[in-house]
Amino acid sequence: MSKLTTIAIDAMGGDNAPQAIVQGAIEALKENENVKIVLVGTKEPVDAELAKYSYDKDRVEVVYTTEEIDMGDHPVQAIRQKKDSSMVVAMKMLKEGTVDAMISAGSSGALLAGGQLVVGRVKGVERAPFAPILPTETGATLLIDSGANVDASPSHLVQYAKMGDIYFQCTMGRKPSIGIVNIGLEEEKGNKLVKDTFPLLKECKDINFVGSVEAREIPAGAVDVAVCDAFTGNVIVKLYEGMGKTLLRMIKAGLMTTFKSKIGALLVKDSLKNTLKQFDAAEHGGAPMLGLNGLLIKTHGNSSHMEIKNAVKQCLGCIEQGITEKMKAAFANNVEE
Amino acid sequence: MSKLTTIAIDAMGGDNAPQAIVQGAIEALKENENVKIVLVGTKEPVDAELAKYSYDKDRVEVVYTTEEIDMGDHPVQAIRQKKDSSMVVAMKMLKEGTVDAMISAGSSGALLAGGQLVVGRVKGVERAPFAPILPTETGATLLIDSGANVDASPSHLVQYAKMGDIYFQCTMGRKPSIGIVNIGLEEEKGNKLVKDTFPLLKECKDINFVGSVEAREIPAGAVDVAVCDAFTGNVIVKLYEGMGKTLLRMIKAGLMTTFKSKIGALLVKDSLKNTLKQFDAAEHGGAPMLGLNGLLIKTHGNSSHMEIKNAVKQCLGCIEQGITEKMKAAFANNVEE
Repeated sequence: MSKLTTIAIDAMGGDNAPQAIVQGAIEALKENENVKIVLVGTKEPVDAELAKYSYDKDRVEVVYTTEEIDMGDHPVQAIRQKKDSSMVVAMKMLKEGTVDAMISAGSSGALLAGGQLVVGRVKGVERAPFAPILPTETGATLLIDSGANVDASPSHLVQYAKMGDIYFQCTMGRKPSIGIVNIGLEEEKGNKLVKDTFPLLKECKDINFVGSVEAREIPAGAVDVAVCDAFTGNVIVKLYEGMGKTLLRMIKAGLMTTFKSKIGALLVKDSLKNTLKQFDAAEHGGAPMLGLNGLLIKTHGNSSHMEIKNAVKQCLGCIEQGITEKMKAAFANNVEE
Repeated sequence: MSKLTTIAIDAMGGDNAPQAIVQGAIEALKENENVKIVLVGTKEPVDAELAKYSYDKDRVEVVYTTEEIDMGDHPVQAIRQKKDSSMVVAMKMLKEGTVDAMISAGSSGALLAGGQLVVGRVKGVERAPFAPILPTETGATLLIDSGANVDASPSHLVQYAKMGDIYFQCTMGRKPSIGIVNIGLEEEKGNKLVKDTFPLLKECKDINFVGSVEAREIPAGAVDVAVCDAFTGNVIVKLYEGMGKTLLRMIKAGLMTTFKSKIGALLVKDSLKNTLKQFDAAEHGGAPMLGLNGLLIKTHGNSSHMEIKNAVKQCLGCIEQGITEKMKAAFANNVEE
């Protein structure tokens, strides 16, 4: 048997923990024979969930913890004080190399804080950004950053582009087109950050920088990787979510207004569902936090077992491609600066 | 007969000029007996369009110009050099008080430049923002700013909130709820601009400031007025547009995939069209440029006659409410500062 890839999963993170987390982990185990799962969480509920399934016990380990980080906790304080929380313990294992990757559906703020404080950044990396995957008409676009740094500097954005290039290649197997989120296509457009960053990205010969991308072109799939500060990124991710939900609600309500449309609704239901599923962020896997000493994937707070299972697959692909080693090599030159 | 409100319309602005512009102007004339329209544009095409209609000639004036500002022109240069363009001539009439308001579907950049350089700001106003109207589930939200100032300061955002308060009351007849676009609801969230602006907005006793609004809540109609810098505003407006168009295209394509859904599509067509119409920005009128010495409304580049007609109605409401006088009174105290 080839060497197993070991993935720690924060069993207590997210709205549906530990049920959905444990279920997704067991499903992933069955679909991927080269993975070992380390479930990190509180003894009673995790054991109770595990007892529901039959599975290969050699490939599941449980690490018991006594604390949980809640959505209401202050991120930095929680990471510093709840040392025996499922999230912090999993992060320590990632840092120490006991596991190859980590998945959590827990608080984004705590994951960001813990990523920096516990896991630590690859040497030479200035900020470790969150990179959610936005569904598009033609597939998906990686948006970097949506969490780490709301007042980013040009050098941060250049590093995001390089990290996006590596991550995209590891997951998709081809070199991505990379754009900077802007308010027009011309080089002289933009706020100070974008204007200062644009020429630096043009100088990067190792990435496929295609210039500015306007927000209206993102849903159509104009670029593979879109780079921006975390304030802009957060607005984009949340507006995506809000527009999708609102339009869905309005379409549903609209279909229920006349007898004719009610009949039609029955006939178009499956087709509409498929279309909207294509635009559901959860279908496209979790958001990696890039540039850390180990692969950390954050799934949605309301992650289903499907999303956890998909995140495991996502980790396996990245680890196989040696993502962390590639990140280390790419930024090794920055260390002395 | 009561005094007529005089509105200058840039007959050469936008993709469908002068046909749609002249048609919309004539329709507005027929629907509103207290309006006089001044069409500003090139003699031959404007006269040819006007010849198609019969209308009250006492309430239409044509001012002939010899130049046009194109989308490709550099905004500031175009305003400075094309002194006999339809846009600049209309702006001069607005500045001099020959007309009460002005409508143009022309270049946003040129309108922004001309607003500052030709029409001029109300005394005490630091920046004149663009305020597009975003369709929402419950109606519409005024977004300020989407064009004037990509690197705004806290005092700009506070002024936007005050201008939004006045404009909303003039058009909707009630005091609006006002939020600041943010990446979380807590006061400590945000980039530097938002964190610095938040306490200043809290201190404004004359507006109904309700705190932060996350981008995901905007489509649901969480606030009446949302304040942000122009970079963020532009991202929001364009993502709105892009999401709407992409989802519509995907839904249409999805409905054509099976025989069942094709039949269903015929039955739900009207209902879907109504729902999506509700979410079409063009249905909600033009974007005012606030804080100028006169009311300037920018309609979409691809404005139809309907949008021009709606913009005339929008102007009439604002003028009736004395919008410019209210702006002047609100910022008179700032002049000495």
